[in-house]
This record gives sequence, structure tokens and C-alpha cells, in this order.
Amino acid sequence: MTSNTAQLAAFAAGLRFEDIPAPVVSKIEDLLVDWFGSAVAGHGSRPVETITRFAQAMGPTQGPSEVIINGSRTTPYLAAMANAAASHVAEQDDVHNGSVFHPATVVFPPAVAVAQALGASGKQLLAASVVGYEVGIRVGEFLGRSHYRVFHTTGTAGTLAAAAAVGHLLGLNAQQMQHALGSAGTQSAGLWEFLRTAADSKQLHTAHAAAAGLMSAYLAKDGFTGAAEILEGQQGMAVGMSSDADPSRLVDGLGTRWATAETSFKYHASCRHTHPAADALLHVMQTNGLKLDDLAKVVTHVHQGAIDVLGPVVQPTTVHQSKFSMGTVLALVAQHGHAGLTEFDRDFLSQQTQALRDKVTMALDAEVDSAYPKRWIGKVTVTTTDGRVLHGRVDEPKGDPGNTLSRQEITDKALRLAAFSGGAKPEAMRQSVDALWQVATWPKVGALLS
Amino acid sequence: MTSNTAQLAAFAAGLRFEDIPAPVVSKIEDLLVDWFGSAVAGHGSRPVETITRFAQAMGPTQGPSEVIINGSRTTPYLAAMANAAASHVAEQDDVHNGSVFHPATVVFPPAVAVAQALGASGKQLLAASVVGYEVGIRVGEFLGRSHYRVFHTTGTAGTLAAAAAVGHLLGLNAQQMQHALGSAGTQSAGLWEFLRTAADSKQLHTAHAAAAGLMSAYLAKDGFTGAAEILEGQQGMAVGMSSDADPSRLVDGLGTRWATAETSFKYHASCRHTHPAADALLHVMQTNGLKLDDLAKVVTHVHQGAIDVLGPVVQPTTVHQSKFSMGTVLALVAQHGHAGLTEFDRDFLSQQTQALRDKVTMALDAEVDSAYPKRWIGKVTVTTTDGRVLHGRVDEPKGDPGNTLSRQEITDKALRLAAFSGGAKPEAMRQSVDALWQVATWPKVGALLS
Repeated sequence: MTSNTAQLAAFAAGLRFEDIPAPVVSKIEDLLVDWFGSAVAGHGSRPVETITRFAQAMGPTQGPSEVIINGSRTTPYLAAMANAAASHVAEQDDVHNGSVFHPATVVFPPAVAVAQALGASGKQLLAASVVGYEVGIRVGEFLGRSHYRVFHTTGTAGTLAAAAAVGHLLGLNAQQMQHALGSAGTQSAGLWEFLRTAADSKQLHTAHAAAAGLMSAYLAKDGFTGAAEILEGQQGMAVGMSSDADPSRLVDGLGTRWATAETSFKYHASCRHTHPAADALLHVMQTNGLKLDDLAKVVTHVHQGAIDVLGPVVQPTTVHQSKFSMGTVLALVAQHGHAGLTEFDRDFLSQQTQALRDKVTMALDAEVDSAYPKRWIGKVTVTTTDGRVLHGRVDEPKGDPGNTLSRQEITDKALRLAAFSGGAKPEAMRQSVDALWQVATWPKVGALLS
Repeated sequence: MTSNTAQLAAFAAGLRFEDIPAPVVSKIEDLLVDWFGSAVAGHGSRPVETITRFAQAMGPTQGPSEVIINGSRTTPYLAAMANAAASHVAEQDDVHNGSVFHPATVVFPPAVAVAQALGASGKQLLAASVVGYEVGIRVGEFLGRSHYRVFHTTGTAGTLAAAAAVGHLLGLNAQQMQHALGSAGTQSAGLWEFLRTAADSKQLHTAHAAAAGLMSAYLAKDGFTGAAEILEGQQGMAVGMSSDADPSRLVDGLGTRWATAETSFKYHASCRHTHPAADALLHVMQTNGLKLDDLAKVVTHVHQGAIDVLGPVVQPTTVHQSKFSMGTVLALVAQHGHAGLTEFDRDFLSQQTQALRDKVTMALDAEVDSAYPKRWIGKVTVTTTDGRVLHGRVDEPKGDPGNTLSRQEITDKALRLAAFSGGAKPEAMRQSVDALWQVATWPKVGALLS
């Protein structure tokens, strides 16, 4: 009789690089490079710089771990905090559809910071990162949709993902890993309420998850114990923070089903909930040769989660908030064919954007809702100014595993993100990305940004 | 139309030392000295030392703030983390009955660490501490009993209490304070699940609350924004973590009702839920001249919260767990007249203790349950070995405001705690306590342990 949590911990502790199938290794390399672009993209962002100033003020000014947005060094705890804050702000980091969880921003910052501190190899970093993905995604799936309605799963499940990745690097045994998960779960936090006033909390959630998860693993290594059943116990996470938790998800296909490989890259620079509808609108416009002025009305047919997260954002007043505005995202896509960071910054409040924004509505759709979160179907109904009613649909948005990005597209995206933020000079970024593609050959993980 | 949270934030930002009635100032001094003993009592405790090693490994080895258990220095963030871990482990720190919240362990560690970093005066420290108490207690009352059934209120409400106290020291204005509360609330965490396996999480909860709350206040000072309505909002703490939240409690008597003064000192070294029954048993035994061997059976008549927290602990295997065992606590009290740290360490598994422990049961009592958490009534029914059935009752356990400790008793308690842990030499502890009673005259808060 081994509990689900004990099985998950044993898997997390025991996974060896050699056990990971080659396509999954290749995918975690893709995800690492994709993440690196998002981390550099945090440079210059006010909330990110604020958290980084705090981390630097409270930590030592020397240390083994890199603060990516400014090249300084500190201890792994505070570097993980700063880098996790940085990695989610551009809204370009990856997502796992089924768990509605963004793994990269909470897995790679602590894993890289600790790998740098330990002098771990590139393969050790990759294996630990896979552990973080596999654990975090399963915890997110376990916590379910009721959890996501109030809690930011990337913050909550992310704390356990960070603990698992760091725990693997620290060589925790199965029992220690279970303690680390217990300590992580009891620090697990993050509420969506900040969206209503466009507050900075998202960056705090990822910073918190990375730092608290890392701390949990270090404590476990040093003998600190955590709840054995933090996920399923009578006073654990599911009872406190979910009403539809599914215990079977915690161990679903451990070692055979690779959740890492199911992870999607982001194409638009907005909340993932807007992407399927955006791609469906693009499809209608391209198929029918429509321009912005041809659109009289757009109804997006969405899942309940999209309404919960995006519904409160009616008239966004900041760039960040506009990334959670379905109308704004569709208006940018209709104008430019995509909604990138540059388009958001320049046009999120332009007259044209606002005009279409206010013609976009969301409606709950039974098919989309029941397919979600496993599949993110995009459906729109467009009414044109000349009275036509057109239907658009995509079954797999750009960036999903069946419609993924090539390594060239990932490289280009990372270079664009660095150029946008100014976080790295173009040549330095290119060298860093080129080197990072070779991470599996590194004897020791050093600074990522040379 | 100012929201409850905005009113609470404005109160927290605006309170001046001069506004605090003299008896409340006197009470916060009592609470500060009482807390100091508990902080020193953390010395040598494995979970406390583990968290402290982590804080010291991740922070600088120099800094303005004191790590109380070992006299080292670091930054306020990491000192607050270590000292908060230390202050709750002896289970001798204070409690506010109505909110089932332990304010000292989450308010004083961050407040003292930041006061040391800023060179704040003793009066500034006291005023900030009152702010922490007033905010944290009201948040705990707001979150209600449903919250406490799963969440450790000291960890959750404690994060906001720490943010409020530190925010006051940093001179946040009302708006910044509201942001600080938003950032604190969205990091708020702590689950009771750890009790089931006697894990170390309680020390992590207080460390987390103090550190995350302190961080929230520093971030707000630097312009970082938080949810405006983290407590009452549609995706805020109450929706996510409570089913009986009472918004009126957030502003109940702000500036006229001083929740600080309602705080109780702990007399027994155990979970507060055991104290009323322990005092009631003592009353029966003293009144009837009973000895341990006279007790055949003890039924404690308790509130549901006691059953929720203590119920899982049937056969404690560690000293810590035994402090959550109603039977163990009553057995120690029956043998020694009180259940102090020394008695727990020596006798928690003795044959005599186990024998009575297994004769003690808990039964839900309607009167006790409805009076709780405002009043903690103790009721027991004792069956003696010669067949008598005796009833015992206390309306206010020792340490409550109507049955409080004198300054001499607080001093003695602090000296005993230091002697128990070996965290300070007797003479040094006496000097420190004597000095701390004069805190209101200090121009600058320096090291507490000379």
C-alpha cells in the first residue's frame, strides 16, 4: 500500500537521465531554450526589477547563481526568486494544457540556480527539469478546475514542481522527496484576485513558488520533515483548495506517459486562454479574406475557465491587463496577424484596438468546455459588416505538440524577446542560445548569459 | 464607499504611538517580553536550527538584524525567517482566542528584524507591533472557523500581520499598505495536514508568514502592487480558503476595540485547545483532593475545533505531537499540576502518562462550542476509581486577559524558557529581559540578546 504521493515522490527521486526517452530529452531542451528567452524578457519590467531589487538587498552580493536580468550573482534561493519573477511577465513562457500550468517559469529558475551552485552537469539539469515538469503537471491535473477558478495553479502546483526539480539535483531519496513535497505543499499559494485591479502579483506568485519550493528541498536534504500526504490528506491541499481533485492523476502513467512532451509553446504574448479563439479568428479572416473593418461582431465560444479568468477584464488599463482581455487580443490579431509584445505595447489602447475590442464577447460552449483542459479548441462566430455570419475553428492552436515550434522558431522567439526587453545584446543572446542548445554536453552548468 | 480592506489598510498605515491607549502599550510590552522568551526557547530545536541554517546559507553573513538563537547577523528578511521559526516551537507563545491566531511569532520577528535594520525607536517597534496584532487578529476572525479546520491561521493570517507590522515601520501610506496586504494575502499558506505525521511544518509556517509578509511590505514600499481586495474579492482569500468568512470582522472597532489587549499568554506548553480542559481537570482534582490514581475516566467537553486539531493525535510518538494529545496533556497536568516543557520532555511517554492518556476522551459540547472562539470554556467529567462522577469547569483559563500573568510571571517564564533551551546564559537572559521591559525608552532598537 503505497500512497499516490509516495509513488510520485519515489518517481521524482529515482528518475535517471538514462530513463528519459530521447524525444522527451529533446523536448526539455526545447523548453529550456524557450524559457531562457522569457527570462531575459523580464529585464526592465517594473515588477520584475522590484522583486530583483528585494532579492539583491536581502541576499549576498556574491554567490554561485546568476540573476539573469542583470548578470549579478547571489545564492540560489534569491537567484531563483528573481529569475522566476522574470520568466512569466512577458506571457511568452510555456503552458501545459491539461493542467493549465506554466512549468518553465517555476521549474527552470530554481533548477538552473541550484545546478550553478552545485556545479551539476547539463544532463543533471535536464533530468531534474523533467522531474519538475512531471510532478508539477500531475499536481496541477490533480487539483483540477475548481482549484484553478480561484487559485493560480502555476503558483500553487509550481511550489511542488520547484521542490521536485531542486530535490532531484540535491539527490534526495524517496522519503526526503516526500518531505520536500510536504513542505512545498504547505507553502503553496497564489490567488487570481490580483487580476481585477491589474496588480503585479503574477510575478510574485512565480517568485514565491520557486523560492519556497527550493527551500523545501534544501530543508528536506537537511532532515526537515513535511506532511506525508500534503496532497490527499484530510487537511491537505485538495481538501483546502479544491472540490474536484482527482487522486489518480498524481500517478497517471508515471515513467511511461511523459507530461513534459505534452507542453505547449506560446505563440501570442497573451494569456493562453485567448489563443484558441485568436487562432480561430485568424483562420476565418484568412479563409475569407477579411480585414479589420469587415468585422462587425465576434463571438468567441469558450470554456468556463476562460470566462473565469478573462471575464473580469472588460476595459484594460495596463499592457499586462490587456493580455487578459479577449477583445484586445483578438483586435491585435485582426490588425497584425499575431499579438506579440511589440504589438501589445504599441497598440493595446489604440482607437482601432478599442473599437474591435468592444465588439468581442465570450460565450460558454459545451463542446469546448468539455474538451478543456485536455484540448484547447478555438471557435468563433464572426458577423461581418455586410451581414455574413462566418464560423471559424482550430483544433490545436500554434505551439501545441501537434503544431509545435521548430528549433529555429524557438531560437528566433528567444532573440526577439531579448531584443524587446534589451536584456541582452543581440550577439550575446545568440551566443548564449547557441550554447544552450548544447546543454546536454556541459560538464558543469555555468552562467547562461555570457 | 471605502472597502473593509481599504479601511483596515488605512488604520494600519495611520496609527501613531500616541493614539494607542496606555493599557494597550503596556500589554504590547508584556507580549514582546513574553515572545522574546519563546524566541530564545527555539535554540537547539532541530526544525528551528534547520531553517536557520538555510537562512544563513542563503543570506549574507553580515547584516543589521539579529538571529536570536545564535547571535549571528544577517538581513532582516532572513533574520525574520529564522526568528519566526524559533518562536513557536516551544508552544509557549501567545494566542488570541477569538481568532485562534498566535500573533507574537509572526509579528515580532519581522518587526524586530526590520526595526534593527532601520534603526527605529522602541516606540516605533511597539506601534508597528500593535498594528500587526490588530490586523492579523481581525484577518483571523474574518477567515473564521471553516478556514481553521484546514488551514493554520497563524500561517495564513500571519502573513498579513507581518506585512502590516513591517509596512508600518517602513512608513507605507494607506494605498501602499493595501498593496502590501494584497501581496501578503496572495502568498498566504499553511495546512494542518502535517499534524497527522508529526512533521516539522509548524516552524515552516511561521517562518514563511514572517518572511513573505516582510517581503510584501518592502515590495509595496518600492511600488509593487497587490490585489486591492485580497480578502473579500471574488477570487480572494475568503472565496478560496473559507466558507464562513465574516467581512464585518475586518473593521470591527478599529481604533476603539484593541484586539492586542485581548491576547492571552500561554501557561501550559501545549496546544491551546488543551488548556481549558486541563485547567478544569486541575480544578476538579484540587477541589476534591484527587490524585492521579483516583482517575478512572476523564471526558473533556470541547468545541469542534479541538476535535479537528487534536482528534487525529491518538498515540503521539514525538514530544511535539504529544502537545496536541489531549490525553497526554491532562495526564501531565494530573501528575505535576502543570504541563511545562520539562514535564513534556521527561514524561510524555512515561507509563503513568500513557495510562491516563488512554482514559481521556473528547466529546463535542454545545455550550463550549457556541462560546468558542470568543470564550474558551473548560469542562470535564471525571469518573473516579471509587465510582464518583465529578464535574469541573473553568470560564477563563490561566493566561487569559481576565486571569493574566503578572510582569514577574512573564519574566520568570522567559527565564525558564531560556534555561530550558540553553539559548542564553541565565545572567545574560535576565539582563536582556530587564532591558526589554524598558523598550519604550530605546532611541534605537539594537540586539535583544546582549
